[in-house]
Amino acid sequence: MVITIGREFGSGGRELGRLLAENLGIDYYDKEIITEIAKNTELSENYVRQVVEKNPHDLFPITVAHTFSYIDVQTIQQKQMIFDEQEKVIKKMAGTSDCVIVGRCADYILRDIKPYRIFVYADMDSKVERCLSRSDDAKGLPRKKLVKKIKSIDKNRARYYNYYTGETWGNKLNYDICVNTTNVNIADLVPHIAKMIKG
Amino acid sequence: MVITIGREFGSGGRELGRLLAENLGIDYYDKEIITEIAKNTELSENYVRQVVEKNPHDLFPITVAHTFSYIDVQTIQQKQMIFDEQEKVIKKMAGTSDCVIVGRCADYILRDIKPYRIFVYADMDSKVERCLSRSDDAKGLPRKKLVKKIKSIDKNRARYYNYYTGETWGNKLNYDICVNTTNVNIADLVPHIAKMIKG
Repeated sequence: MVITIGREFGSGGRELGRLLAENLGIDYYDKEIITEIAKNTELSENYVRQVVEKNPHDLFPITVAHTFSYIDVQTIQQKQMIFDEQEKVIKKMAGTSDCVIVGRCADYILRDIKPYRIFVYADMDSKVERCLSRSDDAKGLPRKKLVKKIKSIDKNRARYYNYYTGETWGNKLNYDICVNTTNVNIADLVPHIAKMIKG
Repeated sequence: MVITIGREFGSGGRELGRLLAENLGIDYYDKEIITEIAKNTELSENYVRQVVEKNPHDLFPITVAHTFSYIDVQTIQQKQMIFDEQEKVIKKMAGTSDCVIVGRCADYILRDIKPYRIFVYADMDSKVERCLSRSDDAKGLPRKKLVKKIKSIDKNRARYYNYYTGETWGNKLNYDICVNTTNVNIADLVPHIAKMIKG
């Protein structure tokens, strides 16, 4: 049993994933993926996180006076290497034990073993509320800036996903179920989703 | 408790709605809405069905040599009347008893009372299979024609919904949950969804 979770920033997708893993008594992978990639590639966790959370279009070489900048070519290779490593790490995790994997294109990477694919989303007000309730950083931001930040993070997630998978992030057809967490207590929802997955 | 179901043609949304109503022991409205509109407007059921299932852009008057055709203006008024009546019928149904309402922009019409909104969808192969298994008409069609028919029905549903609601049919944010019925036994799914709604 492998469950993948795609989620909008602030939708509580990570919480849903964690509680689902707890409920089903299976492993939960989220930040551990970054740690593992960093270990295997000997890059810093910080750098790996930056690469996988940034706009993948930064990958494209910028032509300066009709020549490729050397540094950009190197960056592209390194980013591709990180994605390759991410693929290996995720396949290994899914092959080792039942688990919930949050983000990281896992639904696509694991498509051959047909994981149960969940997408978690919510309306903007609800995402702002969730950010404010869980992060002191968010509390310091004016609402307008927080909305901008949420949109920008999701834009990067979408670009990263679309770039590596050739699919569209958040497109219903790529998920078995899409859950709107607006005005929803995630803990109440989880046992039902768990039962649905167990069938 | 009012549940609305939007659904792609061939996704089994109607079956899901019927079984959900049975499971919850509440009323189920689908074709009854058309019957009721016909009764109240003194139009034939057939005509009402045609109007609500056809491309609403047929509504727009066609300008012929810079004048409106008289017959088109009349048609527009009749179609608007049917939508107004549909709104009344659906509000009355939802106000009378707990129920499941399939299609007919009910999620939008009932937005003030916050129904539980489900959208049911599936991949094309699965929709073709469902059509073949439940309809003798479908069996007589070559696959290509059946696919074309499914797409055309959904295109009309989308246009009708978007025209009357100003929203986008099938947009996740307008539903509490979106369920992919590809390779899924709907009867197995229903009890879990029922429990999720009961909370």
